[in-house]
Amino acid sequence: MSLSDLLRINLGSKNHYDNNHKKDLDAVFKPKGIAIVGASSKPGKVGYQILKNIIDGGYEGGIYPVNPKDDEVLGKKAYKTVEEIEGEVDAAIIAIPAPLVIQTLEGCARKGIKAVAVITSGFGEVGNIDEEERLKKIADKNNIALLGPNMFGYVYTPSKLNASFGPADISQGRIAFISQSGALAISLMGWTALEKIGLASLVNLGNKADIDEKDLIEYFNNDENVNAILIYMEGIREGRKFLETEIKKPVVVLKVGSSKRGATAAASHTGSLSGSDKIYEGVFKQLGFLRANSFTQAFDWVRAFELPLPKGDETVIITNGGGIGVATTDECEVVGIKLLDDAAWLEEKFRKTMPDFGSTKNPIDITGGSGIKGYEESIKIALREDKIKSVIVLYCETAVTNPTDIAKVIVEEYKNSNRNKPAVIAMVGGERTQEALHYLNDNHIPAFGEVNEAVSALKALYLWKEISTRKKDVPKIESAPQEVIDIIEKIKGVGRTILMEHEARKILELCGVPTPPWHFAKTIEEAIEYAKSKNIYPLAMKITSPEIIHKSDVGGVALNIQNEEQLREKFEKMMNNVSAAVPDANILGVNLIKMMKGIECIVGMSNDPQFGPVVMFGLGGVFVEAFKDVSFRIVPFGKMEAGRLIKDIRSSKILDGFRGLEAHKPSIIQTLYSVQKLAPLVKEIDINPLVTNKEGSFAVDARIIL
Amino acid sequence: MSLSDLLRINLGSKNHYDNNHKKDLDAVFKPKGIAIVGASSKPGKVGYQILKNIIDGGYEGGIYPVNPKDDEVLGKKAYKTVEEIEGEVDAAIIAIPAPLVIQTLEGCARKGIKAVAVITSGFGEVGNIDEEERLKKIADKNNIALLGPNMFGYVYTPSKLNASFGPADISQGRIAFISQSGALAISLMGWTALEKIGLASLVNLGNKADIDEKDLIEYFNNDENVNAILIYMEGIREGRKFLETEIKKPVVVLKVGSSKRGATAAASHTGSLSGSDKIYEGVFKQLGFLRANSFTQAFDWVRAFELPLPKGDETVIITNGGGIGVATTDECEVVGIKLLDDAAWLEEKFRKTMPDFGSTKNPIDITGGSGIKGYEESIKIALREDKIKSVIVLYCETAVTNPTDIAKVIVEEYKNSNRNKPAVIAMVGGERTQEALHYLNDNHIPAFGEVNEAVSALKALYLWKEISTRKKDVPKIESAPQEVIDIIEKIKGVGRTILMEHEARKILELCGVPTPPWHFAKTIEEAIEYAKSKNIYPLAMKITSPEIIHKSDVGGVALNIQNEEQLREKFEKMMNNVSAAVPDANILGVNLIKMMKGIECIVGMSNDPQFGPVVMFGLGGVFVEAFKDVSFRIVPFGKMEAGRLIKDIRSSKILDGFRGLEAHKPSIIQTLYSVQKLAPLVKEIDINPLVTNKEGSFAVDARIIL
Repeated sequence: MSLSDLLRINLGSKNHYDNNHKKDLDAVFKPKGIAIVGASSKPGKVGYQILKNIIDGGYEGGIYPVNPKDDEVLGKKAYKTVEEIEGEVDAAIIAIPAPLVIQTLEGCARKGIKAVAVITSGFGEVGNIDEEERLKKIADKNNIALLGPNMFGYVYTPSKLNASFGPADISQGRIAFISQSGALAISLMGWTALEKIGLASLVNLGNKADIDEKDLIEYFNNDENVNAILIYMEGIREGRKFLETEIKKPVVVLKVGSSKRGATAAASHTGSLSGSDKIYEGVFKQLGFLRANSFTQAFDWVRAFELPLPKGDETVIITNGGGIGVATTDECEVVGIKLLDDAAWLEEKFRKTMPDFGSTKNPIDITGGSGIKGYEESIKIALREDKIKSVIVLYCETAVTNPTDIAKVIVEEYKNSNRNKPAVIAMVGGERTQEALHYLNDNHIPAFGEVNEAVSALKALYLWKEISTRKKDVPKIESAPQEVIDIIEKIKGVGRTILMEHEARKILELCGVPTPPWHFAKTIEEAIEYAKSKNIYPLAMKITSPEIIHKSDVGGVALNIQNEEQLREKFEKMMNNVSAAVPDANILGVNLIKMMKGIECIVGMSNDPQFGPVVMFGLGGVFVEAFKDVSFRIVPFGKMEAGRLIKDIRSSKILDGFRGLEAHKPSIIQTLYSVQKLAPLVKEIDINPLVTNKEGSFAVDARIIL
Repeated sequence: MSLSDLLRINLGSKNHYDNNHKKDLDAVFKPKGIAIVGASSKPGKVGYQILKNIIDGGYEGGIYPVNPKDDEVLGKKAYKTVEEIEGEVDAAIIAIPAPLVIQTLEGCARKGIKAVAVITSGFGEVGNIDEEERLKKIADKNNIALLGPNMFGYVYTPSKLNASFGPADISQGRIAFISQSGALAISLMGWTALEKIGLASLVNLGNKADIDEKDLIEYFNNDENVNAILIYMEGIREGRKFLETEIKKPVVVLKVGSSKRGATAAASHTGSLSGSDKIYEGVFKQLGFLRANSFTQAFDWVRAFELPLPKGDETVIITNGGGIGVATTDECEVVGIKLLDDAAWLEEKFRKTMPDFGSTKNPIDITGGSGIKGYEESIKIALREDKIKSVIVLYCETAVTNPTDIAKVIVEEYKNSNRNKPAVIAMVGGERTQEALHYLNDNHIPAFGEVNEAVSALKALYLWKEISTRKKDVPKIESAPQEVIDIIEKIKGVGRTILMEHEARKILELCGVPTPPWHFAKTIEEAIEYAKSKNIYPLAMKITSPEIIHKSDVGGVALNIQNEEQLREKFEKMMNNVSAAVPDANILGVNLIKMMKGIECIVGMSNDPQFGPVVMFGLGGVFVEAFKDVSFRIVPFGKMEAGRLIKDIRSSKILDGFRGLEAHKPSIIQTLYSVQKLAPLVKEIDINPLVTNKEGSFAVDARIIL
């Protein structure tokens, strides 16, 4: 049994997560015919709006209104039930009162419909969970892909299918937008149309009784009409299932509820557990999602994926204004985009494109006096020279140029260059500039009215390039050795759940976590003998007793013991202290641990209610206590992911070396990897500190709770 | 002589900075008549565009084209020279070839013109500095306010005066926009019109031969047509002058060149020294400017100042969408806006405004089904209840409401409430929403298409409230005591510029910097005697010799000396080490310093080429070495400003207490204040570490360079 299986059992996954047969989402998005149950002739009704959107959107398959009262709705023949429809129907939209939904779904099943979107609300979101589970069961039994309930529909522009009661006007494009919220998605439908942002699909998830984020991402993975996926998320229902999402295309996620108060609000709003944002952050990192901070940023990023990925780091900025050139350079540094820096080469290539007072220093400033020709020549060079890997074109509106003419030159040159490197555009100006931006976007070149947005979009390409070219890091975590299981069983047998320090350190050691030289000694003689034979001075000594958790509070810790004399003296003192403080304690002996110098880290493992076992990494001391600078990954993860976890923390720079101290990263990674073996066996692990130095890393102190 | 005077002399300010008589900027912005020298009938010419903009803009004063060839230009009588104009003329715009500018300016002086904007380029920016200085001299002699040269003009909407060759279409408003860059300003003119952002004024600074940022800010301070000032800046020319800018209204600054490469690009672009961004950051903090990161953010902020300042912290969010409510809550936490948190009170007040499934928990979620009425009622309460100090209204476009109707309700309710608290709006949607946003902005309620922008705008009000209600902190830094001057003179006398540690510590002590118990001992006997009598064990001992700078490299440092025995032993060893390593060194004795436990800080003073003496503060060790986490202020500054400097660093949390350590802030402030006394006397001070603990702060080690 794999660790993953163990975890699943351990977490008591009781949902359809094991139901592995894929449902036919082609029936949702590319149906040959579609039934609209609850179709209505009355404007203002949901069933009117959906039917109207389907008709007006130009959907070319069969359109079958279902309505028990009318013979015709909006000029289409209407049917009393779905079963009466004579044509081929793959999909049904249900917009009728909740009590009628079950019987209609059963009718759909009999008709052989493979995709049903339940618009109707009044299910899980108002506590009517049983009814929702009945829907799910019928859907599963009949292999129906069920969207919703409680949603506003979906859109799939390659099929000209607008099966929603949102706005009718949608720009066609290659972005798939999956939204948990209906309200936000409807309003963003309007916004994307206004901004000329093209969508391939928009799906409102609603209650996700059946089809959820994972199903849709994996469908769009193989949909050639989709370039990039955007998910608006308030919370995940099935953490472990979500973690197994396969991604093949860029996924940008906008997850709200990052603040404590926001998380509470999200929980009360959606009923989905919101959980710690730090853990979501880890989940997204682990899956390779790009997390955006605002919907503007999220759309800026997905729009970028109309472009090819850059083949290297060297970016060139072309501008007609010095100021925005500088601002863009600043922002490139902030986000980590490297500008091409070969002054002589740039001078040679670009000098001829500008007046004498222009600058070839990258930003290439062709100056405000430059008209179309300056842009044409400089862009041609930037797009054709292989040394340049990506291009940012900036433009400040001037009286001497028409922004749309500039836009046309960009489109033309980009087409001529066969779109073989990414180019993003920022243009600042008034109405004419707005038109130019729309022209560029219509021609599949992401163009923005603010330089920071253009830089951010380009950065998304670099981020995705890194993610998509990673080596596969399939985590194969071995089970803990039998000896560990035996030790744990024995401790459980005597009714203890908190391990003593030597037990914890022993178990970690057996799993492969590096430890400092240490020994559990029952007597002073044994302690002296060990310390001498292994020469582990200076050492720390700690009392060992199942009754004593907070050792230093009872005088049970002595640090910096330099020699035998001090060891003997401190031992005696410790025994006296502890006996006086906790007379009933069963003292088993002492732990001796060699004092280690280095950088203090912490490694922890705990159980998240949604995602199960998670591993935490951070720097110790002030970094964890004052700054809470820790990051998470979800068990299981491999060594490459552990390496990325280390880099996640804000203060990771310290691990690269500071005042002669330096981290031993391979052994930190080893630790992060090894603790995972204990995931099915223990509740909580806290290694604090894990001291790391040039020689290695060492679990100096450890706590384990079963 | 004040420290400020001393500094000025010390910095050798050779410009007109002492020229304190104010020029008449009313002549620039509210002229009775205006001459356009170089006015032309040929479309495409600058002199055509400016005259056309002045006429089309509706300027009601006298308009006098000056052109030697024509009798009439654009239907206006033209004059051969300004002196020929018979009417009253306060201002002139000069747009003629550079070689003719001087004589025209002289003509303006003879005509009694008090404001001249020189559009013409070809002066300082191309190295023609002499000519530019001549312009400045003529302007000063005749008390003419000179704008430019090398600029595109200016706009002042209260006078309906568009004296620029930028776009003709400008929204009238109460923002004064001062731009160093012409290109960016022209393009932003168009952008503000598109976005319905109203301007009172727009001034392109050009080469700033005479009128600069300070002059304009101080003019707009007293201009009732202006609410807030926005400055786009690439670099400052006269740092010390700029520092004395008085601000009475919110000033938002967008300064580019924050990255190293960006600074280089800015320098090559404008010719102005760009300098360290960290120092600019300190300058802006000290002056009370709000620094924005993008032009969108800068305009979001200045737009906010149409609103009254909040009277307290408690903010309420009203929304029809759960998702954007959560996103806004997150963003409030990020920027530090506190939401009102009295569940019972909120329930009592707001329950009646929403359906049962709405939430009164702030965000107040009146739900997507709510129409105009829900908004009307909830906004009325939010605006009228004194307990609520500021309001954020959110709206997701839905089918059931017309966004402009919502906007009208907001405008109406806001008017009825007498605009007595700030309310910002964010609306997400398509074209109809866009119209609603314009309606709100036209009615002086800042409204945004992205929630983060609304939150950011509200935060700007809170920031300005804090700044504008600060107690005046007029820095009166005393001169260093005579004893210090004597010591320094003596050291200079023997040709040394680097002080020995005991000299540096002595000088600092005399200026009021707290130090640990310490003593400079010439012999071992003196050392033992002092250590014993003052009981300063454990102590550090350091070699004292004018020839030895890097003491630890030659074995000249011993730490943690616990007793007399160790002191004697280490002393002997040190003398041997040092003699062996530097045989020629003139060893004067040793410094004994009590070892202090606490948090390590650093305090430094150095000379910035633009702003003169600056003081730096940071935490020591890894914080300065790995994270460069330091902040600056410019000498002179008072103790309140020093308190703010301490809070500026990213890791300032540590000073509030960590693992039993705690900073003694009054003595840190005392240190930051006291080092300034040395500004006119020394080049560089480096106190590292300044150890701080509950008892006080202590300059443990110090270096001073003359």
